[in-house]
Formats: sequence, structure tokens, C-alpha cells
Amino acid sequence: MTYVVGIDLGGTNTKIGILNEKGDLLKSDSIKTLSQHGIEDCFSRIWRTVKELALELNIDEKKISGIGMGIPGPVENQSVVGFFANFPWKKGTNASLLMQEISGVKNVKLDNDVNVIALGEAKYGAGRGSKSSVTVALGTGIGGGIYVDGKLVSGYKGAGGEIGHMKVERDGKLCGCGQKGCFEAYASATGLVREALSRLVVNKNNLIYDMVDGNLSLVEAKTIFDAAKEGDSFALDLVDYESEYLALGLSNVLNLINPEVLILGGGVALAGNILLDGVREKLKKYSLAIVLEGLEIKLGELGNDAGVKGASALVL
Amino acid sequence: MTYVVGIDLGGTNTKIGILNEKGDLLKSDSIKTLSQHGIEDCFSRIWRTVKELALELNIDEKKISGIGMGIPGPVENQSVVGFFANFPWKKGTNASLLMQEISGVKNVKLDNDVNVIALGEAKYGAGRGSKSSVTVALGTGIGGGIYVDGKLVSGYKGAGGEIGHMKVERDGKLCGCGQKGCFEAYASATGLVREALSRLVVNKNNLIYDMVDGNLSLVEAKTIFDAAKEGDSFALDLVDYESEYLALGLSNVLNLINPEVLILGGGVALAGNILLDGVREKLKKYSLAIVLEGLEIKLGELGNDAGVKGASALVL
Repeated sequence: MTYVVGIDLGGTNTKIGILNEKGDLLKSDSIKTLSQHGIEDCFSRIWRTVKELALELNIDEKKISGIGMGIPGPVENQSVVGFFANFPWKKGTNASLLMQEISGVKNVKLDNDVNVIALGEAKYGAGRGSKSSVTVALGTGIGGGIYVDGKLVSGYKGAGGEIGHMKVERDGKLCGCGQKGCFEAYASATGLVREALSRLVVNKNNLIYDMVDGNLSLVEAKTIFDAAKEGDSFALDLVDYESEYLALGLSNVLNLINPEVLILGGGVALAGNILLDGVREKLKKYSLAIVLEGLEIKLGELGNDAGVKGASALVL
Repeated sequence: MTYVVGIDLGGTNTKIGILNEKGDLLKSDSIKTLSQHGIEDCFSRIWRTVKELALELNIDEKKISGIGMGIPGPVENQSVVGFFANFPWKKGTNASLLMQEISGVKNVKLDNDVNVIALGEAKYGAGRGSKSSVTVALGTGIGGGIYVDGKLVSGYKGAGGEIGHMKVERDGKLCGCGQKGCFEAYASATGLVREALSRLVVNKNNLIYDMVDGNLSLVEAKTIFDAAKEGDSFALDLVDYESEYLALGLSNVLNLINPEVLILGGGVALAGNILLDGVREKLKKYSLAIVLEGLEIKLGELGNDAGVKGASALVL
């Protein structure tokens, strides 16, 4: 029996788990990433945590056959990180090699964090048993991962699945990436709140405004969905806006990939049926009929474990 | 030494070739498809032609180890054809099984015709030696095929790579598919001519109008590119329109797949640099910088042999 390690490297916290060959998460822990202390310090502390977990599980660390890592940034050839988003670490670092040196484990593979979540959902979560799935993380931004025939479509430079920056409006709203009309600028939680705020400037006679007592800086995506669930028409219009752009962006992916399962995760997906019913209906307007045939649309199942489980799947 | 057969089934003509294990096309022939006589008749005549070609090459037909076919329609599991576009043949036919029965060859695989062209270009043409490529056929419509790590992304129901029906304008121009705002409705040859005709209604003082002597039914994409090459500003504006939408649609694919090579084929691509220079420039507006890093943009190399060569690659 050998074991693998799954690591979900985050801007603030890093989650580390030990799994068996079947992909069962045996034990996990979370440490502060402290990226300002450098990558060697961080990776060394990660490995120390792995050894502690192994000790607690009574596992010989020599039985660890592989280490998988999810990284916030594009990863080329599952080893070289194009850049670490919001980390002061060197561009083009061969982070796989570094972890091999620190741990002594030879089989170290990395991929983008959202791709890794998609791999986790595909193998162990909502996509389990399916040949192909697309996972879309709808949060502050929009990320995605494409899984086909047992593998991720990671891309030549590690930028495969950058669903959030497909354009849904030509010369549309400015996006954080500097371009215009990105899917993320419309349908992320940030995009939805932004639209709400722009409407709230001219309309204060609604439940959202009441819920935040006029303090617009308190408006979140959840506020909007909560108000919509109460039947507030201003909020329902915003949910309609959200479902329209979600359906448009998701359809572009479906038409291109024609996956068996579409998996939605992230905070926006938690809105549930009030959002998803609209999306399902509007998909018919933008997706070819054939790509909706037999398509399963599911919510992500792995929650906070998706990153660690997906990372481990890179080396299993 | 064994041999394989590649078949490019078309609405009017069907091309049939015999190739060696290296993918060299040894001999090919073309027959009328005559779809009105039924699929059995057509497949029997195809197999008869294969036997004739084998005889001419002095190859024992028993040495044919596989048959690959490109089909105008979606193909599920490389065997079942969802529907034959514009053929009076039964939906959901297991065309692989039928060809196995007629030929006695067990290894028969089918895929969508544009996917098959993409496979041909990826393995033997402009994408040769690359791990991933996207091939886009810009003609009367727009089709595409995605090749990643040695395989096509054919899709759950065989509709993978349906690039032409990604939306580039929300609620935009009506497309032949019945939906609105499709890439194909803007950037196909038909889309470009349609835009030209709409502009010609209000402007006759241009070279295109002169070239067709006012007979607007004669305007083709080539007319527009030819007039642009003469420096006609009305035509150059249309080329700018075409390159803008091409860049937008292609960027959506690049952001999602991040391929190593982008291969353009079909009549529109023949316009050459007058179009492609604009596309290259405008890609920067719509594509993430990282997906343009090291990206090669090439014209298809296999021409009329792409279908037969690609089909053979399904079984090689």
C-alpha cells in the first residue's frame, strides 16, 4: 500500500492531505501560506506538515509515492508555474523540481488550482463515472477546468479552461484582466454586485436597499439572492440578468466541448434553484440542442476538499 | 505491412484513399455519394472502390487493418451517427457496424468531418509535431476541431468543436441554426457577404459594386478580398469587420483550450495576409496574453487530402 499527498496552495492558507490509492482522504491539515517568506520556506513547511500527518497516521513517509499540487496560476507541463497570482514568487519557477528536492519524492505534479478542483470533481465528485465534464467555479471571479477522457485540458502554457475571460459582449464592461466584455465581468459574484450597485444608484425602492440599510458597500451576491427569494422584483431582475449571462457563457463552453456533465461550484452556485432554473431555461437559447441532450448539470460535491482530492488525482 | 482506408463522406462526392501505416496516401479515388439510394448502397460502392484501389496497388484486401470515416454530422463514440446533415439516412445509425459488416474489417471508426480534418492537420499537416491544436474551417459555415494530447475532443454526443455556434453577440444576427449571434453568422463567408450586401444597399460607390456590375447576387467573399487588395476603402472596412469577429471568436476558443497551434482552413483563410494581419493584431484585444505566448497561427496544409488523411488517423 502506498499513499499520495494532495496540496491546495492558497493565497492565505494551504491545505495539505494524505490519501490512499483509492483517493480516500485519510487526514488533512491547513497551514498559513506566508508567501512573503519565499517559496522554499513555504514548501519546506508544507513537507514538514506532511511528515507530521504521516506520523499521526502511522505511515512511513517513504511510502508516499506522489505529491500533487494545485497552484494559483498557469502551470506548464504540470511542473513550471508561469506566474503565481498575487504571490511574490519568481515567474517560470519549476515548482515540481523544488518540491522533489525538498521531499525526496520523485513523482510531483502541479496544475492550476481551478483545473485541479475540476479534476477532483471529475474523478471523485459530481462528475464521477463520466468520461467528460466541465467544472465552472462561480465566485469573486470565474474559473474553469475541462476534463476529457481521464485527463485535464491544461493547455500549452497552462491556461486551459480560462472560461472567465471568454468574451460575452464585444467591447463590453471592463474586466479586472484589463480586457472588455469578459464572462467574469458579467456573471461572477463581483459582476452581479457591480450591476446591482449601478442599478441601486437610480432605484432605492427595493428590498436589497432595505436589507443593507442604504449602506451599499454591504451588498453581496447573497444579499441579492436572498432578496429575490423574498419575491423582490428588483432583485429578481438582477437574478434574471445573472442567469442570462451565465447561460450565454456556459453555452459557449458546451458548444465547444460537449461534455457529459456540467459542474457548477463557488458561492454563486449556492444560490440554488432560484438561479439554476433560469439558467437551464436560457441555455436552450444559446446552446445547440445536441449539446443539451443527456447533459447533466450538477453542483460541485467536494466542497473544501476538492482542491486536495483533485491535486492527489494528478499523481494517482 | 498493413494498410488503412480513409473515407471522406460528402454531400455530393465521397473521397476514398488507401494509406500505409505511416499515413502516406498511396492512392485515392472519388465517387458520387448518391445518398438518395440509401446508406447500404453507398457503403457497398465505397467498399467496392476500396477493393479496386487495393487491386491497382497490388495489395491483398485482407491486409486492410482499419477503416476511418469522416461524416457530415455528429458521431457518438466514433460509431453512431446522431444525424447525417442533409442526407435522407436514418438518425442514430451505427454506421461503424454497417461498414464492418459490408467490408469484413473489424476496426472501423467514424468522426465528424470537420473533426477528422482537424485530426489530419494535427497529425500530418500544419499541427504536425505539436501536442495540441485547434483547426477552424472558415467557409460557407464555420466548423472546428480540437486536438489535445493525441486525441480529438469529439464530445459526449459527437458535437465537440462546434465553434461556429458559439455566440459572439448576445441576441445578434440570426444564424442558419435558428439561434442568434453565432460566430458563423458573422465571420463565415456567408456572414461576410451578408454584411457586404446590407452595406451595398446604401452605398454603391465602391469597387465591389463595380466588379459585379451592380449584380449583387454575384458578390462572394473573394470579391470582397480582391477589392480590398486593390485598396478600396469600402472593401477594406468589410475586411476589418471580418477580422474583428474572427479575432473575437477565435479568442474565445484560445482562452478555453490554450492550444499550441491554431490552424485556419477553408475559403476565407485563402484571403491570406490582408485578413490574417488584422486578425493577429485584434487577437490581443480579446485573448489573454498567456494564450498568445508561443502560439503558432498557420494555414491548413493538407487541402483536399485532409479528410481522407484525417479519417485514416482514426484507425492508425
